[in-house]
Amino acid sequence: MNRVFILSDHSKRYRELLNKHALPQLQPCDDIRDANIVLADPPKVASLLHSASSLEWLQSTFAGCDAVLAHTKRDYTLTNVRGIFGPLIAEYVLGHLLNHTRHLAIYRKQQQQAEWQPHAYSSLAGKHMLILGTGSIGSHLAETAKLFGMTVSGLSRSGNPTAPFDTVYATSALDSALAQADVVVSTLPYTPETHHLLNEESLGQCQQALLFNVGRGGVLSEQGLIKALDDGAVEHAFLDVFATEPLSEAHPFWDHPKVSVTPHIAAVSFPDDVFACFRQNYLNWYHDKPLDSIVDFERGY
Amino acid sequence: MNRVFILSDHSKRYRELLNKHALPQLQPCDDIRDANIVLADPPKVASLLHSASSLEWLQSTFAGCDAVLAHTKRDYTLTNVRGIFGPLIAEYVLGHLLNHTRHLAIYRKQQQQAEWQPHAYSSLAGKHMLILGTGSIGSHLAETAKLFGMTVSGLSRSGNPTAPFDTVYATSALDSALAQADVVVSTLPYTPETHHLLNEESLGQCQQALLFNVGRGGVLSEQGLIKALDDGAVEHAFLDVFATEPLSEAHPFWDHPKVSVTPHIAAVSFPDDVFACFRQNYLNWYHDKPLDSIVDFERGY
Repeated sequence: MNRVFILSDHSKRYRELLNKHALPQLQPCDDIRDANIVLADPPKVASLLHSASSLEWLQSTFAGCDAVLAHTKRDYTLTNVRGIFGPLIAEYVLGHLLNHTRHLAIYRKQQQQAEWQPHAYSSLAGKHMLILGTGSIGSHLAETAKLFGMTVSGLSRSGNPTAPFDTVYATSALDSALAQADVVVSTLPYTPETHHLLNEESLGQCQQALLFNVGRGGVLSEQGLIKALDDGAVEHAFLDVFATEPLSEAHPFWDHPKVSVTPHIAAVSFPDDVFACFRQNYLNWYHDKPLDSIVDFERGY
Repeated sequence: MNRVFILSDHSKRYRELLNKHALPQLQPCDDIRDANIVLADPPKVASLLHSASSLEWLQSTFAGCDAVLAHTKRDYTLTNVRGIFGPLIAEYVLGHLLNHTRHLAIYRKQQQQAEWQPHAYSSLAGKHMLILGTGSIGSHLAETAKLFGMTVSGLSRSGNPTAPFDTVYATSALDSALAQADVVVSTLPYTPETHHLLNEESLGQCQQALLFNVGRGGVLSEQGLIKALDDGAVEHAFLDVFATEPLSEAHPFWDHPKVSVTPHIAAVSFPDDVFACFRQNYLNWYHDKPLDSIVDFERGY
């Protein structure tokens, strides 16, 4: 018998789904010490990991696992959730981007004054989007941007060509990639290698780019961004993730005119979607097949 | 020798493009009476049509030709511009739609108060968009909506199945089509048949739908819409076109909390794109081939 410990903002829904689907040889347990399987939100479970003495497999409910990767315990298999966040990230990025390029905020203000005044605009077609991270989220976003006629480059450790990206740069070519982009989107996980990859120097290469961070806050130097915004290298930043969350009330981003802040909602884990991933992975586990979406402790993603 | 008369908000740019491309046997002329070809914005040229005694072909710079179709003169070939507005309409609809479903306006307000407060949302995936009009604009929008995981129905006079629509309803089935849609987008031209197709009765069938009008204002009964908004059948209306434009300062839409007004900018005619259509059509003309995008005076599109 396998025993699963559940710890999530959506624990109640996960228990309902577990009851409903009756997975073979699996029962819930209330003490992490008894569990060989854990289904959990990484920030919630991290402080309990030292007690998880029977843990064999942890299924993260998030894409980003940095909270559990920061723990020294590594004698188990860690899997994350892939393939369900791409559409939500694409909605977030395209929603903000079109709101900006099509002047929707200006028209809302004009409406308050009953003012009929068109403003010139350009289509997204022909614009260049650079996506940092060529995994499932970056790839889905790339497909969406291409449907809007954009040219889409990716950036990855290797720089190996990957569909649907028109070009893929290696991380070492970050500066020249940034210099060519109209829109930059970071989907990168937080690892020692990505720490402050976007900093004063690299962001200084941007040419009035629009910048999105939908990956992890630690990839971006907040001081470096403010410098790049003030210099005009970055025209506007749309930030959903931050070094410290929630963002403190005194943080300069809140009232910076070139920053849009959202409270880490670009892609949320809808429990039914996450459970479908867990269910498939549990069936792999039960049938002794390899698990999907294994996180490499060394690489950090 | 063919003689073209140009009348547009972008006349200067069209003359530059004409000089640059040096089309065979074509020269500009300054008097519409001498022109056998006219390249014009319909609202600008309509009042001159009675003088266009040599007119053989009028290339509209717009998709919607209702301004010239209202004139009794019909002894010429009328062509419009197709295929270049779909991407702009898709940007407008998706930009507004994602702004709404992803609560971006709420986050902008919260930012002013340094308030970190996530709000629940649903993805567009699985939602149902009904597009009135299955021409090139409606089809492009349908493709875009499908990439976001939406189910997409169309509505046309015939109701004949057409890719990429999942289903196509005939106009006679409008009421039941409206009852099933989460999002309704009218791309319809204004003709006697489409006059007030969206009225108090038909809009009353909607079930808290989001409504877009990016076609022509006369398709929508403005009184009928206000009733449907007040009853909750329509949750919010995004309107780019109106019975009378500009919208008068006293119009109730300006300060209706469930209406977003934009000044007819969903798809504008970028002169370089329009000229590319004209150039191709002129070469058809010159080589005695059929013209593209001929408007049927009877149908009105």
